[in-house]
Parts: sequence; structure tokens; C-alpha cells
Amino acid sequence: MPSTPSLQTAAEIPTERLPTFADIEAAAGRLAGHAVVTPLLTNAELDRETGARVLIKPEMLQRTCSFKFRGAYNKISRLAVGPERPRAVVAYSSGNHAQGVAAAAALAGIPAVIVMPSDAPAIKVSNTKGYGAEVILYDRRTEQREEIAARIAAERSAAIIPPYEDPDVIAGQGTAAREIVLQAREIGAVPDLLVAPCSGGGLLAGTALAMETLSPNTRIYSAEPEGFDDMRRSLAAGRRVENEAVSGSFCDALLARRPGEITFEINRKRLAGGVAVTDAEVAAAMEYAFRVLKLVTEPGGAVGLAALLTGKLDARGRTVAVLCSGGNVDAGTFCKAVGGGTS
Amino acid sequence: MPSTPSLQTAAEIPTERLPTFADIEAAAGRLAGHAVVTPLLTNAELDRETGARVLIKPEMLQRTCSFKFRGAYNKISRLAVGPERPRAVVAYSSGNHAQGVAAAAALAGIPAVIVMPSDAPAIKVSNTKGYGAEVILYDRRTEQREEIAARIAAERSAAIIPPYEDPDVIAGQGTAAREIVLQAREIGAVPDLLVAPCSGGGLLAGTALAMETLSPNTRIYSAEPEGFDDMRRSLAAGRRVENEAVSGSFCDALLARRPGEITFEINRKRLAGGVAVTDAEVAAAMEYAFRVLKLVTEPGGAVGLAALLTGKLDARGRTVAVLCSGGNVDAGTFCKAVGGGTS
Repeated sequence: MPSTPSLQTAAEIPTERLPTFADIEAAAGRLAGHAVVTPLLTNAELDRETGARVLIKPEMLQRTCSFKFRGAYNKISRLAVGPERPRAVVAYSSGNHAQGVAAAAALAGIPAVIVMPSDAPAIKVSNTKGYGAEVILYDRRTEQREEIAARIAAERSAAIIPPYEDPDVIAGQGTAAREIVLQAREIGAVPDLLVAPCSGGGLLAGTALAMETLSPNTRIYSAEPEGFDDMRRSLAAGRRVENEAVSGSFCDALLARRPGEITFEINRKRLAGGVAVTDAEVAAAMEYAFRVLKLVTEPGGAVGLAALLTGKLDARGRTVAVLCSGGNVDAGTFCKAVGGGTS
Repeated sequence: MPSTPSLQTAAEIPTERLPTFADIEAAAGRLAGHAVVTPLLTNAELDRETGARVLIKPEMLQRTCSFKFRGAYNKISRLAVGPERPRAVVAYSSGNHAQGVAAAAALAGIPAVIVMPSDAPAIKVSNTKGYGAEVILYDRRTEQREEIAARIAAERSAAIIPPYEDPDVIAGQGTAAREIVLQAREIGAVPDLLVAPCSGGGLLAGTALAMETLSPNTRIYSAEPEGFDDMRRSLAAGRRVENEAVSGSFCDALLARRPGEITFEINRKRLAGGVAVTDAEVAAAMEYAFRVLKLVTEPGGAVGLAALLTGKLDARGRTVAVLCSGGNVDAGTFCKAVGGGTS
């Protein structure tokens, strides 16, 4: 995998690098007993307010408090054994992938080195260290995280665990959508719509592959912060376009500059579109999740819920699955959003 | 039922007023499709920190954001029909029973009048009105809520829905423990211990009856705030004793002056004991639930978790079910507890 993705055309991606539904099924088997089967929640007030039947997939209840553990664990469980086994794993991440890799590496008994931006939330840095990983901070404006990770990988004979541009990572993330469909069936529901937060597009790609087989009539939407809505604009343009800004969003987890090559190749054929929400709309969704759902969401975890609550995703009269991707948020940021902190 | 319970001896309670396990099974049938089957959650970090296998029953995810909907709905669904049907229901409550009755009455299409203390959290008063109930405030220090409710019941031909001293209410509350046992079985777990918040003792009584049949080896503990630990002291004394204070605890939901007659008659034979926790320990448990579990707990909802986290309930090496009873908390109170608000 190139350390700095160029804007390749789809024709350049070898088919063997694209994951399939079978890979998601296999990932689900590997994750059993290690990842949390997060519940599928319903809420009468939310249904009343939106006019929809809403199914909440609360991935803040996942191990490491975001869906990222799924992909990280699946990837790490497939590392070579014996003499070929890497001496460590290395990852670059704004924080949730960092924690997922750190916890999965600890379970696998392999050292983890995580390259994190210096402006990552304190809770994400301290949790990553708490799972036993070595953390190396970098400056998001002046340094390339891929280059730092590649150097560490070479120096330490470490395997890079990419945040999204990897078939095993994508397959792991797809297990959340697989659970949504199976859990919805148990209550007699089939999602007409599904919305999930999007950064590099790995969660969406895994979701799209899972739904294509299990629930092909479900229309899938990405949700992103305004100004960082590269997936939405790329889907509309039919080619990968990038964001102008590299930092500055309230949604620290959703700052990928552009869709991945692999993730976009999967998503462009399978997603119905994208929704962009403002920081104020995200904060309002976090407050709603606090007050009504009683769930702690981080900003990036709430963009799908924000898309629903604002009506930008019109779900009236439909069954809609909303994936809330994570809950790793500092108390100060959270309390400012829910109206109980200092402004 | 007497409007002001005297400290009767157990011999005075007619057996037909005591609910049975069959009543809990019947309640579960009535609640199906109306109450949320809240999930049973596990958390690797919590297990690691406590040395126990912890099963969290998050009743803040219940309809009206506390377990109280269960008992209220069960009671209201058993009201007479035809000419004997009450014209309204009336309840007195510090807030969670208020919301449960209001929402259950709205579903049943019967008006609800709720007598609430003037110092109840704003979120509880506004939610109760939001479910369509009429709210009458009283002064906890100078007025008797039972007398106000009795007067309203007489004036409006309304049925009183007691917060705990009622077989149908107790049976409804017992459905949460029934779910715990069935959900634990699905993951191959049997609780050695169970701890739940206690005010008048209705939740504990329903829990004790459910566990007696479904999981008789589970040892059940009440959790209360220090100074309001009437159940703990009553269990130790073998008779109902009352708290000196009537207000002033951080745990606004747990201010009942003494155990109910019916609830104590059930609990005194079936509970293993009680645990009392300080306000600071409750705030720490709320912070833990925010930071690690990603759940919003109100103070009274977190006393069982506090009992576990402090080690006052020693669960090392055991499987322990912790019922978190509610999440109706104002943002200011919550944020002060989790360290993100103004002090």
C-alpha cells in the first residue's frame, strides 16, 4: 500500500485488495468473544420527534468506546505467525483507531506504537497509553503521519495497521452493519435507510458491503461535518475530491482529507449519497443523545444522528438505522455541548 | 392501602397483597412491545478494574429513562374497564415514577395528575409535563404528598398509582431482573451477586421475587445514599426503621423515609444486605459511567455502581449484575459530577 495515496483511478486497484461479504462474515467469527455485540436501541421519544422508526447502533458501547476496535482486531488477528510475525504494530490515528489498535494489540500480545496528532483530545491520548501503547505525537500542520509511521515500521520491523485503507480493516468495520441487520430482524424491522459517520470511509465501505448482501434495499448515507464533507462531494462528483482544511472541525475524529482509494471504490457504487452537518447541529445532537437517549457521544460520533434530527436526512415514515460511532470525548467538550459546562 | 403507612408488623399484611413470581411473568407479557427490553452490557475495562465479571442493566435506556415505567405501565394496564374505570390516575413522586406514570397513562389514554416536590430536578418536571400529565408541586418539608394525592383522587374519581407499595407496581419492576437472568444465560453467565438502587424498595422487592425463582443462588444487595440508608438499617435491625432527614441528598430519587410495608416484608427475607455510599462516591460513579461506560446516569441511578466501584460490595472473582436505575439528570448537575462543568 502506498504510504501517501495518490488520486488513482478505480481501474488501478487490484480486485484482490477489495474485501467481500465473506470477509465480513469471517471477521465476525474472529471478533466473537472479543468485541462487544452492541445492542440495537429504540426510543419512543426519538421516533415521535422524527416521525420515523429509528434503530440506534451505539458503538460508544464497543470495546475502546468506538467501532474502530472491530477493524483493528480483525487486522491484527490476521498478522503472520512464526518467523514472519511483525515485532510490533504501528498506526496513525486522530484517536479512536489509536485506541482500537492499542487494545487489540494488547489482546494479541504484540507491542503497539501509535502516531497521534498533538491536538487530539486528551482522553484519546491517555486511553491509548492506558491500553499499553507507546504514543508518538506529531504536528498535523507540518508533518505527514504516514511518513512517520512508515519510518517506525521500517526501524522496528512493525506492521502498519491502516485506519481505513485496508481490506481486513474494512471487513472488521462491516461487522457493525451485519449486527444491525440481524438485530433488526429480531424485532421485525428492515432499515429503509442507514446513516453513519464518515472520515476516510472505512466504516461506510464495510457497511455498504454488509448491506449489499444482507439488506440490499437499504439506502446508505455518509454523514460528515461541513467543510470536511469530502465523501459527500466525491460521491456527487464521481471521483475523489479533497477538503481544503486539514484541521479546525469540532469533529476531531472525521478529519481525513479525502476518501481512501479502496473505500471510495466500494462506496461510490453503493452509497445513496452524503449529508453534511454544521458544528452547531452536531452539538445539538450530542445534547439530544445526553438528554433523551442517555448515551455519551463524541462530536464525530453524533454526525449521523445530527443528519436525522435536522431533517437533512428525511426519514419520515421510514425505518432508519443510525450508527453512532464513538463516545471518546473530554468532559469539558461534552459539557459545553450539552449546556452544563462553562461556555 | 393506607395513605400514610404506619409501621405495621409483617403479620398484618394479607398474603393476597404480596405479589408472586407469576405476577412478574404476567407483567412481562403486558410490557412486551411497550417497555424497552434494555440490553445487558459488559465492559472489559470495568471487569479489569473490579476483578469481577460485571453485567450492567442500563435502565436509563428504558422508556422515560428509568425502570419506573415498568411498574407504572403494569399497574395502569390492570385498571378496571367499563363503568368502574377511574377517570384519571394520580401519583406522587420525586420524578422518575412521575414520568413513568405520565407516559404509561398517555399510552392507556387516561389523564394523569402528578404531585411532585418543588425541589425536583427541572428535567423531571418538564419531562412529566411533556408526557402530557398535569403537575402539582408541593413543599417536601411542610406538606404530605400522600394527603394531596388522596384528596385529588377523591375529587376526580382518580386511581392512585403508588410508587412502590403495590403488588402490580412491584411485579412490573421485577421484570428488569427477569430480563437480567435471561440475558445473562444467553452469554453463559449466572450472577453471583446483584446490586440495585433502593428508595421505597419496590425495585428490590420485584428483583428479589424474580431472582428467587429464576436464580435462587444470587445474593441481592440494596444500595442507598448515606443518611438515607433506611433499607440497609432495616434489614440489619429486622424491622422497618426510618431516616432522620427528608431531603438534602444528592440522590433526589432515593429519598423515601422508610421501606414500604409490603416491600420490606418481601425484602427482609430475601436480601443479603445493604450498602450505603457517600455523595462523593456517587459522583465518582457517574463520572466513571460517563468516561468508561458512556452512559448517562442520574445520582440515584448510580448508587449500585458506586457500591461496586468503591469495593463496598466485594465482587472480586464473581459475576455481579449492577442495575443502573435511571438517567434523568439536569445538565448542570451531571457536568459538575463528571468534572466538565462549573463547580
